[in-house]
Amino acid sequence: MTHQETMTDYILSLIEGFTAAGIKKAVISPGSRSTPVALLLHRDPRIDTQIAIDERSAAFFALGQAKVDLEPVLLVCTSGTAAANYYPAICEAKASQVPLVVLTTDRPPELRDVGAPQAMNQQDLYGKQVKGFTELSVPESTPNMLRYVQFQASQQTRLAIAAPKGPVHINIPLREPLLPDFSRQVPSVVQHMIEPKIDVTDAKEWSTYLAKKGMIVVGEERTLQEALQLLRLAEALGWPIIGDPLTNLANAGKTSSVYIRHADLIFSAGVSAEFQPEVVLRFGRLPVTKSVMQWLMNLPLSTEWLFVDEGQQWHDQLQCATVFLPYRVSDFVQASLSTATVSDTKWTTMWETRQAQAATMVEETAELQELNETSAVYAAHQRLANSAQLFVSNSNAIRLLDRYIQNKPNEAKVFGNRGVNGIDGITSTAVGVAMENPTTLITGDLAFFHDMNGLQLATSLQVPLTIVLLNNNGGGIFSFLSQRTLEKTDFDSLFATPTDLEFEQVAKLYQIPYHVPSDLDELNELLDQQSSGPRIIEVKGQFAEPVTLWETLVASFKAVVANE
Amino acid sequence: MTHQETMTDYILSLIEGFTAAGIKKAVISPGSRSTPVALLLHRDPRIDTQIAIDERSAAFFALGQAKVDLEPVLLVCTSGTAAANYYPAICEAKASQVPLVVLTTDRPPELRDVGAPQAMNQQDLYGKQVKGFTELSVPESTPNMLRYVQFQASQQTRLAIAAPKGPVHINIPLREPLLPDFSRQVPSVVQHMIEPKIDVTDAKEWSTYLAKKGMIVVGEERTLQEALQLLRLAEALGWPIIGDPLTNLANAGKTSSVYIRHADLIFSAGVSAEFQPEVVLRFGRLPVTKSVMQWLMNLPLSTEWLFVDEGQQWHDQLQCATVFLPYRVSDFVQASLSTATVSDTKWTTMWETRQAQAATMVEETAELQELNETSAVYAAHQRLANSAQLFVSNSNAIRLLDRYIQNKPNEAKVFGNRGVNGIDGITSTAVGVAMENPTTLITGDLAFFHDMNGLQLATSLQVPLTIVLLNNNGGGIFSFLSQRTLEKTDFDSLFATPTDLEFEQVAKLYQIPYHVPSDLDELNELLDQQSSGPRIIEVKGQFAEPVTLWETLVASFKAVVANE
Repeated sequence: MTHQETMTDYILSLIEGFTAAGIKKAVISPGSRSTPVALLLHRDPRIDTQIAIDERSAAFFALGQAKVDLEPVLLVCTSGTAAANYYPAICEAKASQVPLVVLTTDRPPELRDVGAPQAMNQQDLYGKQVKGFTELSVPESTPNMLRYVQFQASQQTRLAIAAPKGPVHINIPLREPLLPDFSRQVPSVVQHMIEPKIDVTDAKEWSTYLAKKGMIVVGEERTLQEALQLLRLAEALGWPIIGDPLTNLANAGKTSSVYIRHADLIFSAGVSAEFQPEVVLRFGRLPVTKSVMQWLMNLPLSTEWLFVDEGQQWHDQLQCATVFLPYRVSDFVQASLSTATVSDTKWTTMWETRQAQAATMVEETAELQELNETSAVYAAHQRLANSAQLFVSNSNAIRLLDRYIQNKPNEAKVFGNRGVNGIDGITSTAVGVAMENPTTLITGDLAFFHDMNGLQLATSLQVPLTIVLLNNNGGGIFSFLSQRTLEKTDFDSLFATPTDLEFEQVAKLYQIPYHVPSDLDELNELLDQQSSGPRIIEVKGQFAEPVTLWETLVASFKAVVANE
Repeated sequence: MTHQETMTDYILSLIEGFTAAGIKKAVISPGSRSTPVALLLHRDPRIDTQIAIDERSAAFFALGQAKVDLEPVLLVCTSGTAAANYYPAICEAKASQVPLVVLTTDRPPELRDVGAPQAMNQQDLYGKQVKGFTELSVPESTPNMLRYVQFQASQQTRLAIAAPKGPVHINIPLREPLLPDFSRQVPSVVQHMIEPKIDVTDAKEWSTYLAKKGMIVVGEERTLQEALQLLRLAEALGWPIIGDPLTNLANAGKTSSVYIRHADLIFSAGVSAEFQPEVVLRFGRLPVTKSVMQWLMNLPLSTEWLFVDEGQQWHDQLQCATVFLPYRVSDFVQASLSTATVSDTKWTTMWETRQAQAATMVEETAELQELNETSAVYAAHQRLANSAQLFVSNSNAIRLLDRYIQNKPNEAKVFGNRGVNGIDGITSTAVGVAMENPTTLITGDLAFFHDMNGLQLATSLQVPLTIVLLNNNGGGIFSFLSQRTLEKTDFDSLFATPTDLEFEQVAKLYQIPYHVPSDLDELNELLDQQSSGPRIIEVKGQFAEPVTLWETLVASFKAVVANE
């Protein structure tokens, strides 16, 4: 694909994003760098474009247009001081809550900070006077980059019109030559995404989607109440529901056959096209399960995506969402339940059967009857008392739990730090969580090492915290990742990172009871004991053991489903 | 008042703000600069304080506490790198939407950037990883500064718990000595503000307030529909309603006797204590009318303040609001109308009478029958056709309209740029507004001069824009302000700023028809003509004339109401 074709496809996708979110008017100030955007906007019959020479006037003019009906107006200018002239009107728009979408064009990264003419730093140019800023990539034309640019344009526009309304800023770097290719059409990967935005509180508006073959995908930490509501909705619709341990779907006090808790096993082994839904209903960010993400990413373009997000952040990593529903989970479920019926029992049964097969295979896994990292994680969740809490660290802990989790008939609450997945404050966070209820923490030795000071809090506050320490002397997660193919000398020093610490000494330092169970029975016995203060249960693991177990399991399941 | 007393009162007010908005837990890391905050928090029985030595652990511990019930937790540390150690947990809280209120203590301004120990720049320390940041003043103990600090603490906490939840940052500079005065009580000016936050969608929760003697105060631009709804609510409650011309209360298609459109005259002349309401119901920021603001500011502490703001920005310049209602105007009015009744007809009549007296006096003002700046503004509003639009510039234009505005039986829409009150883009904004409907712009010669390039847009787009240019050759607004008492040599060069331009030449340059009416009849005739393109009507004013007229009017009205 030529430079011009790539640039044109990218900008056409950008414009699709604007129109999808409600842009009908644009004010363009002529300039060189903005040429392709200006030309393609001007030729778009859906957009009323006006030309204003002086950028200060242009921005105030756009402000006036936006004031009348409070619909967003797009501003486009070239690079350099042109963009700075927008500033007075942007300040006014921020203070008086008028939606403006400011698109500044820019020189590409290689021309910045090298003394090239008209190249100034346009990142965050308007500081706190805009509600949002996004720096776009240099144009690329792979499907996911076209979706990306369309999504960014939509997302920023939606931000501009969400209460309180206001200005947003998008900066787009463009390379020469700047003339677009007028023969290009809007790329098909993007076209299907032009859907009306639905922002009414009436379930009728989305009930047509709920009458199809669908799937619910849940991410982020959910309260037990939300988890229960989501399970009820899934059952009422007969839709499979997927969500990792943090969603609490496995332990919200309800066992549901449509909860696909072994999604990682099922998708890692592969599913046929008949498992593809017509509609995906999403709540929050994606689950931690990577195979789910990859499968969702490759669903056909005809798939409809509904995204429920009270906070209107639209964190859609897949950038596929077409219908945006700004509601609380509870409000959405309540409204939906009034019309929900099972649309296709065959669809429901197919998923229930696959989940049941996976559960059988996991339960029959011999290694889960021995003591190892995997069985320790499995046991820590299974043996939670009613109303108890589980905190799972990142890296291996959350993944092992996601893979082997069982439904629990009683209520328990799972927590993690999956906002940015750090391993720097796991113990301290778990101590905070344990201030409310008895808590089990599953953590690895590296996360434990990072936050040993958190143990001082555990001791001084005497919180009821049981730390299950998976000690494989280093970064076990990397044996799951691509780094494991490295030479041993590189791998061990950079990734395996053994600390060679005797954690029993740490326990002594903080006067915390310390246990090393010799078999699974002993671990289970310890887990069943109530503890009023902190304690550490060390499970000695072997570096690559969980990987081998998992790969064997996936291969076996692949064989089972292939034989059907 | 001693330093210690002042500092203590200030910090007690800060803590009141936190508790009013829902803070029940605090995590404190010991340090010197944070001493008074730590001690006063620790002694507050409403707050559960925990001590955590290492700030990185402390922040993750607070994150864990906040995760369990998603209620905000307060973090307090000393100045310097202590604050930087909070950063990892703040990043996690932002991404996983957990409410944290981070209070960093700081050295006072005079110790910054001079090489003092442990003094680093703590402003905006967490960049975009927090939802909000506020830099507090050095402690002061005047009533409005105590309200200020209480309001800031509440506002930031409310921001942390609004969807999407997340961390906020407050930086407080403190001077030595740092030991508080434990004998101090919470200042009374602040105490009355501790009110439960009401955030339910049930009118019953606020209907007790609506049964009292109240007043509605409206600010910011309102749609005609909102203005109409607000007038209906005021009539149903029998409450006076105050709002400047931008609120569109005067021209929403309804004439209402409870609309106090001459508020500036009434409050400038003075009102007795019997005019004080028990409840003030506010929508948006304050009206432009300064005398209203000053009167509101001095209402008794017992006054209840309700604040309706869908965008939850709580822009309460008076910092008096006690009840925060995060609803759309339309939803709030609809819910309120179901229970609204007139509580006190005497209260209603008293206000109606005062407004009628003011209207009579304004109508009988002889100067409004002659051509001058004041009568031109009055006429431009009165002679708007149905569905026409009026754009008022800042400085004199908006104030004169606010003072002399009459009810209009037909619908018209008033606009302005009152977000930050600039005079840099008035003409261009009005051109944008005129893209929708015929528009009259009232502007002064200085605003006109700033944005002459906007005329090029008006001409090239041939918008139906009538510009009423109040030309007093300089900054007429300053003759209303305190600068007028300056020596003439200072005043003329710095504030009067005559441009000595012949605006007829400007009209010629842009080929815009130009008129200079010689009397009011001629102006009215021009205003009644429909124009399909732009035109300029210049009204030559005299610098101090509007001031004299206004001061005479206020004095006369004072005499009328004094005689009652």
